[in-house]
Amino acid sequence: MVGKPLATIVSAGLSKFGRREGLYWRELFIEAATEAFDRCPNLDPRKDIKAIFVGHMGESYEHQGHTAPTITDWLGLTPVQGFRLESACASSGAALRCAVMAIASGLVDVVLVGGVEKMTHRSTAEVTEFLAMASDFPFEQWNGLTFPGLYALMATAHMHKYGTREEQLAMVAVKNHKNAAINPKAQFQRAITIEEVLKSRVIAWPLKLYDCSPITDGASCAILVRPELAKKFTDTPVHIIASAGATDKIGVYEREDLTTLLSARVASQEAYRMAGVEPKDIDVAEVHDCFTIAEIILYEDLGFCPKGYGGKFIEEGQPEVGGKIPVNTSGGLKAKGHPVGATGVAQLYEVYLQLTNQAGPRQVSGAEIGLTHNMGGSGASAFVHIYKRGD
Amino acid sequence: MVGKPLATIVSAGLSKFGRREGLYWRELFIEAATEAFDRCPNLDPRKDIKAIFVGHMGESYEHQGHTAPTITDWLGLTPVQGFRLESACASSGAALRCAVMAIASGLVDVVLVGGVEKMTHRSTAEVTEFLAMASDFPFEQWNGLTFPGLYALMATAHMHKYGTREEQLAMVAVKNHKNAAINPKAQFQRAITIEEVLKSRVIAWPLKLYDCSPITDGASCAILVRPELAKKFTDTPVHIIASAGATDKIGVYEREDLTTLLSARVASQEAYRMAGVEPKDIDVAEVHDCFTIAEIILYEDLGFCPKGYGGKFIEEGQPEVGGKIPVNTSGGLKAKGHPVGATGVAQLYEVYLQLTNQAGPRQVSGAEIGLTHNMGGSGASAFVHIYKRGD
Repeated sequence: MVGKPLATIVSAGLSKFGRREGLYWRELFIEAATEAFDRCPNLDPRKDIKAIFVGHMGESYEHQGHTAPTITDWLGLTPVQGFRLESACASSGAALRCAVMAIASGLVDVVLVGGVEKMTHRSTAEVTEFLAMASDFPFEQWNGLTFPGLYALMATAHMHKYGTREEQLAMVAVKNHKNAAINPKAQFQRAITIEEVLKSRVIAWPLKLYDCSPITDGASCAILVRPELAKKFTDTPVHIIASAGATDKIGVYEREDLTTLLSARVASQEAYRMAGVEPKDIDVAEVHDCFTIAEIILYEDLGFCPKGYGGKFIEEGQPEVGGKIPVNTSGGLKAKGHPVGATGVAQLYEVYLQLTNQAGPRQVSGAEIGLTHNMGGSGASAFVHIYKRGD
Repeated sequence: MVGKPLATIVSAGLSKFGRREGLYWRELFIEAATEAFDRCPNLDPRKDIKAIFVGHMGESYEHQGHTAPTITDWLGLTPVQGFRLESACASSGAALRCAVMAIASGLVDVVLVGGVEKMTHRSTAEVTEFLAMASDFPFEQWNGLTFPGLYALMATAHMHKYGTREEQLAMVAVKNHKNAAINPKAQFQRAITIEEVLKSRVIAWPLKLYDCSPITDGASCAILVRPELAKKFTDTPVHIIASAGATDKIGVYEREDLTTLLSARVASQEAYRMAGVEPKDIDVAEVHDCFTIAEIILYEDLGFCPKGYGGKFIEEGQPEVGGKIPVNTSGGLKAKGHPVGATGVAQLYEVYLQLTNQAGPRQVSGAEIGLTHNMGGSGASAFVHIYKRGD
């Protein structure tokens, strides 16, 4: 039996992703929020919104913390209460989970949830340093281990244990670029070939440049309400029927097995239980493909295929649009782009479009149930949400 | 009629505040959590705790973000879900508000909430730079305005409009040092005189060194449960009967009146309404005295005295232990210390001790109702909670 809604999405917005020169992150957030407001003419933001929850990873990029009041101010929403969540690249997944709990508490009826990051104005070295704060300082950063290195450890372990091949990693990138090519908000709107991926320069073997998500500017936004109020705001509601989070050891060196992501397993199992659905019921999923190996491991840990079969799953085309479970129809982090704090709610945005039949040329026909998986760092945090098209 | 409990505190812990050399913030957090666990032998942390919420302002101090999984890992609580809240110096006030909503949602029964900051290993210039991230980058930081400067603007405006005097500011510092002198966890355990305050060096006139809260290392922790479950864990529960938050414009230059803090007014009025109590019912309060002028403005904006009478309120001894409303019996940020991310839940810790008759020589006799006010930056965010001694 499908679970009852915890909260309902009545609108969503997304800024164009990519290199957005000359803007502060607060301006990117306004772009995303404006789309969400325009899509929902029955919403009076100043009157209706009772709290905002925003995912924002790095205060260093613009030397600006205190994210929530910066946003309520620039959206003209003060004195409404606001919360900034940080959980590395899962920051807006965490914001979404808190927003869902806020609605479920009955203490607030209408909330704005979103995420934002402005990254491209800093050098690659600076971005690498800021992102590294999501890993363990004394035991990882101190030794020079960066995120491509951490995920390369997972990739080599997976290749060794399950025979996963570089070509299979490349297929994930090719699929996600193919999807992004028809997503007007994506950073990279062009298809690529397996050969291009394999020939791109090595970042941390076996991961090449095209196995890695890019540095991106962007913002995401959604409006959640108590399910009973949804009809006041929209004819096309999307219900959140499960919301779960989990953590794992911060240092990868502490984990027993590098080929699996504990946080994804725990959070997704909890979410399936809460939603009353199984992996086979998922019609469309956005998962955290920060590196191609992550998407392959996630096919397995989210239960889309048995453990060790992630490489085969992509090789057989099962996560393609038209396949068993279309994954990252937006282009994913890999090709839509990965403004870290914005990613969790950007995943929600794609699922929202799919479940309301607004995804245009990348629409998954008849999609009713969707899933998002947003991950922080090397998987030390994860948030999984399951969505159902409303009546 | 006093409101019904939203959540119940069954235990709390606080690290020693001050200069804590040779420790990472994660270790300070363990110190606070260990006290909370030891105080609550019926709690099995790994079995009972279903979520953690942690306030942490600055990832730059230790180059360590991804706060929540770092803590779940080091407390041995993985894979439990975790959330880091940042709202500048109100970070753990925000964490507390989210923890309360989580309990009220019915989705989790037992949560750990806390806050942490490790600051003293960095230079004063670095700390000033990191703290500045709580103010507006393009319009405040860029022009060299730091927090003593921002609060000095409020102080001069208050002196001009209401005749508040430097001696009255000094009296706040004297009172808080007097309280801290008998708080073994305080950073400054010694009394000071009005003359010492007035003769201390000017930081940003009229604020002298002794008008300013110090740079501090510390951590705070509490265990919240669904009210119905409290008796399983403790004989001395403390109920949270109101929880509210508000924001204000991020830039002080945008505000109409520098002598009042909108976020404190809005959040406290909402909290009093929710709790069904009035300011006169408050037996003990911890308020955000980052600078002495803040405490004076807060006497007014929290309704402890009429607008403009804050200076007179302290001069008459009304916020002293034994006065009308004892304020900052812990010593406050001024003398207990201000590890920014830890402060909100450290305020809760003092109220918890007071309402359970564990405050030792600084005990307010018969205290039943308490209030905490935690503020971010120059008041762009604030969280107010009201507490009631349980039966």
